[in-house]
Amino acid sequence: MSVTIRPIEKKDKEVWLHLWAGPGGYLEFYKSKLPEAVSNNTFERFFDESEPVWCGVAVDDKTGKVIGFATYLSHRTTWAIEDYVYLNDLFVSADCRLHGVGRKLIEYVYAEADKLGACRVYWHTQFENHRAQMLYTKVGFKSGFLTYQRPNSK
Amino acid sequence: MSVTIRPIEKKDKEVWLHLWAGPGGYLEFYKSKLPEAVSNNTFERFFDESEPVWCGVAVDDKTGKVIGFATYLSHRTTWAIEDYVYLNDLFVSADCRLHGVGRKLIEYVYAEADKLGACRVYWHTQFENHRAQMLYTKVGFKSGFLTYQRPNSK
Amino acid sequence: MSVTIRPIEKKDKEVWLHLWAGPGGYLEFYKSKLPEAVSNNTFERFFDESEPVWCGVAVDDKTGKVIGFATYLSHRTTWAIEDYVYLNDLFVSADCRLHGVGRKLIEYVYAEADKLGACRVYWHTQFENHRAQMLYTKVGFKSGFLTYQRPNSK
Amino acid sequence: MSVTIRPIEKKDKEVWLHLWAGPGGYLEFYKSKLPEAVSNNTFERFFDESEPVWCGVAVDDKTGKVIGFATYLSHRTTWAIEDYVYLNDLFVSADCRLHGVGRKLIEYVYAEADKLGACRVYWHTQFENHRAQMLYTKVGFKSGFLTYQRPNSK
Repeated sequence: MSVTIRPIEKKDKEVWLHLWAGPGGYLEFYKSKLPEAVSNNTFERFFDESEPVWCGVAVDDKTGKVIGFATYLSHRTTWAIEDYVYLNDLFVSADCRLHGVGRKLIEYVYAEADKLGACRVYWHTQFENHRAQMLYTKVGFKSGFLTYQRPNSK
Repeated sequence: MSVTIRPIEKKDKEVWLHLWAGPGGYLEFYKSKLPEAVSNNTFERFFDESEPVWCGVAVDDKTGKVIGFATYLSHRTTWAIEDYVYLNDLFVSADCRLHGVGRKLIEYVYAEADKLGACRVYWHTQFENHRAQMLYTKVGFKSGFLTYQRPNSK
Repeated sequence: MSVTIRPIEKKDKEVWLHLWAGPGGYLEFYKSKLPEAVSNNTFERFFDESEPVWCGVAVDDKTGKVIGFATYLSHRTTWAIEDYVYLNDLFVSADCRLHGVGRKLIEYVYAEADKLGACRVYWHTQFENHRAQMLYTKVGFKSGFLTYQRPNSK
Repeated sequence: MSVTIRPIEKKDKEVWLHLWAGPGGYLEFYKSKLPEAVSNNTFERFFDESEPVWCGVAVDDKTGKVIGFATYLSHRTTWAIEDYVYLNDLFVSADCRLHGVGRKLIEYVYAEADKLGACRVYWHTQFENHRAQMLYTKVGFKSGFLTYQRPNSK
């Protein structure tokens, strides 16, 4: 499967929203829903130069169709002068998996993080997501940290 | 032990650097060192209004001494319009532990996050840090996510 | 706190049942109950020479009271000619904790396992049991294995 | 792939030893070696009626070749009158994976455990073995327990 990763464009809104929030999509995997206003706001931020929030999409070279995406953002850290890049969301359409698309999206984020001068790229995954971790152990490593959260937060 | 949590002040630099990078301090716990320029830069950011990086310190009411700190920062998320607050570092001097100081520092960060309008507070901890997790399970919950990282990053 | 560990005796039945199944006891910690027939059967096995099931109790030298116990059993393994010893249950009365009693019970099981010619001693603990793991990391190590179980089994 | 699971037979010794200890085999996966005397002893125990140690093998119906195995044993528990069955080892030849052979071997052990009157079947897996856990979450569940071990034991 030949795939190109490129920055998201405004014309991708419909297909991105479909992959993000549609049936069989990213949010559904997490048994989650988000208000439309949040999804729209996030999409707008990808194109707002004052916002450190970006999105790369995977395009099937044969069909020209967007089949996956990676969103990422940068933020401060107390441990470095440079920013960290957080890979917030990664998704590949179910019928296009096992063809290295996820890996290409992560490598794209690595390259973009280098351009941004970030000194770290990191992401979170659920303990139980073994399918994802089979990829993650190839392109990254488990840092040995887990996440705690304030109760009753969104 | 009666303790007050307040925002760090410029006069706290020496004691903060000691707790942060000195013997028996925070970085030592992580078997880490940081260039002085990073520590200084982080300290400066606490007072820079354009930087979303803050620090609260715990002061022993009896002695007036700074005995602990929590650093935190806010950043975007694709899942909400509001920011998340990340509790980056938490430390209480070894001889002042088991008196609820860590808990008070976390609760201070919760209150500051509310003022900032953040919709989530989260932090990371090492799998093996059972002492810390005995506290964290009281004031927060394990989200079920673990952290992966790009290799060879700082 | 001065404590002696010795093999359980028949006269200990009442106090053992209390620590095992009574209020504030071992089974309660696991939010579990067992039929009386099971507890009685387990107790009988401690004294049955044909059964590879044993129990050591911790006695407070000052009061003569039984304040904790460790049960253990041996079983085959495909990885060695010698047996493994499994530390099945470990309990110290809540008001006697933090005095090294748990550690002494584990060390007793180690010594008994040596007498039995066992080539390994191992046990299970819940991910979330941070208090226990603060001890376990001192006397043992996390093997990197977790436990799966057939659904709907007891 | 059509596969039959049956108890191991004496004539299977050579192929079992190959899958168990040969190149690309089970022990190699764990970066382990065992003395020949241990492997031979384990093999003998499968046929010794006084030993609670068994082995089922997977036979490719087309070629008649043994392509995988599951060893299991029963042992006492303090939590029940009946025994537990421990699935000690599970292996499918690399070129025969992703055809449901592992699942059939586990289901065979479940059925044998029922015949033995065991009230639980359980096994261990490494945190990092995501491939295996993709199967295990389908036929079993993570109990929430992890394994600690005495240092310097075999």
